[in-house]
Amino acid sequence: MAYVAVDLGGTRIRAARCDAAGRVQARTEQPTRPEEGVEAVIARIAGAIWAVWPAEEPVEAIGVGAPGPLDPRTGVVLTAPNLGWENVPLAERLQERFGVPCFVGNDANLAALGEWQYGAGRGHEHLVYLTISTGIGGGVITHGVLLEGAHGLGAELGHIVVEAREGPRCGCGQRGCLEALASGTAIARMAREALARGEPFPGSDRDPESITAADVAGAAARGDPVATAIMERAAFYLGVGIATFWHIFNPTLVILGGGVMKAGDWFLERIRAHARERAMTPAYITPIVRAALGEDVGLLGALAYARWRLASILPSSR
Amino acid sequence: MAYVAVDLGGTRIRAARCDAAGRVQARTEQPTRPEEGVEAVIARIAGAIWAVWPAEEPVEAIGVGAPGPLDPRTGVVLTAPNLGWENVPLAERLQERFGVPCFVGNDANLAALGEWQYGAGRGHEHLVYLTISTGIGGGVITHGVLLEGAHGLGAELGHIVVEAREGPRCGCGQRGCLEALASGTAIARMAREALARGEPFPGSDRDPESITAADVAGAAARGDPVATAIMERAAFYLGVGIATFWHIFNPTLVILGGGVMKAGDWFLERIRAHARERAMTPAYITPIVRAALGEDVGLLGALAYARWRLASILPSSR
Repeated sequence: MAYVAVDLGGTRIRAARCDAAGRVQARTEQPTRPEEGVEAVIARIAGAIWAVWPAEEPVEAIGVGAPGPLDPRTGVVLTAPNLGWENVPLAERLQERFGVPCFVGNDANLAALGEWQYGAGRGHEHLVYLTISTGIGGGVITHGVLLEGAHGLGAELGHIVVEAREGPRCGCGQRGCLEALASGTAIARMAREALARGEPFPGSDRDPESITAADVAGAAARGDPVATAIMERAAFYLGVGIATFWHIFNPTLVILGGGVMKAGDWFLERIRAHARERAMTPAYITPIVRAALGEDVGLLGALAYARWRLASILPSSR
Repeated sequence: MAYVAVDLGGTRIRAARCDAAGRVQARTEQPTRPEEGVEAVIARIAGAIWAVWPAEEPVEAIGVGAPGPLDPRTGVVLTAPNLGWENVPLAERLQERFGVPCFVGNDANLAALGEWQYGAGRGHEHLVYLTISTGIGGGVITHGVLLEGAHGLGAELGHIVVEAREGPRCGCGQRGCLEALASGTAIARMAREALARGEPFPGSDRDPESITAADVAGAAARGDPVATAIMERAAFYLGVGIATFWHIFNPTLVILGGGVMKAGDWFLERIRAHARERAMTPAYITPIVRAALGEDVGLLGALAYARWRLASILPSSR
């Protein structure tokens, strides 16, 4: 049986034909061009799906990972700032077009499901996945169930509050969220703040607005103390966040993905050290490992989600 | 079919015979007297069970709520400071004695299950329960599953970190946990700190060590500004914690129990206001209500747990 998986992002649409074991049999990629409007993007998604559609084999289902917030029960994308979408019934539109079940889920949740089924999380019925990138997204498998929450808005692990009173403003409008303290955006902001305090670091002799988390990570890897202190601060908060997730979910594994994790192993080691230090008791401590699926996490997550939803008699309310 | 439910605490053992609908048909209560040792306490638990055992009807299972940490899969109480227990195989001992399945679970998790099955949470497949007392315990139902975690150590909702750097020490040894900022113990500590700063409040003209959260709540209810500021601070952190749980679990209900909630409705209203203020978007906001089961939450939780575990083909790993 074949499945079609779609990874819908703000800059590109990827689609693949896969088998149930997670083998990609065909793939395609197109630019999203959200500025051309909803219909044009849906047409490009449909085109990408046709491009990988099997000639003879039937397709069991289509899975789509999309930026949230969205309602996974109905497949309606509620708002997607980087697509400019509001209330787009994506699942319904694709289902009408292709005549097979179509399931649309939150991309970070699907990534967690993908890592569980095909990646670093295989065999774990309890795992926490974090993607640390521009923002911090998350996904949770608990008791073998993908945690989506009552309306599909759950597992927003970047928006746990870790500095309630004095924490910095977060992109979500709140204060002191993990995302505001340890995302790529937060790392770049801390670098600009350091510069404003007169603490330059190698590579910071540029327009402060152009400095990225990768610049800071690079300078830290070369031993610069200012950059190291910034990365250490991010690692501290990621460790605190992971300890909080240990206490809440008591998982057997924590998986870290996203661009910020491209910083070297020293960064992962610092996160591990801080998490261990903040665990209530050693019984909570688990391995903290890198994500395994790389660029394909979106596609394999969408595949895993299509299979997960098909297997649920009551979709999203098991 | 009858069930026997046991609520094992540091000061008393309660037991009841119940039907599946949660009706208590017989009940008994005894002092725990942990100082007499493990065997004496187990004997008293067994005596309490015999006292409510039905004359003719068969017993389906025994459910026991016990202070943690414990392993719900094996029913072994790992450590229980207020019982002085270590590695006591309670489920096995009772199962041998009574010849019916016996399930032992964490008391706060069981309380959540009890409120879900018989109390304020009926009909909700996604709920968060907090008991705010000396400490802060919690329980979660997500997708209709009791969240216990891989080793039964999950849902420690009082030990999410909300003030990572500067938060006060917590009883768990960590820093800035919700419990260290909003439990009864935290409220009493803040009162002592206020006194030390020369900020007395009505009723504080006593030995500072004897001041309780109830004293502070009482003075706040009568309009005292020092006590009000302390309760407001606790309400703020409870609101922040609830917003964090909204973002993680996207539940349809939050239930608050425990002695601290005996403060008036003004306190509940302040918690609600702070939680709403910290929600990422209004879509996360749910009712925040009082627990409904009162003193019987331990017994009805143990009943619900016995039924829950019996219904699971793979106990604790659904």
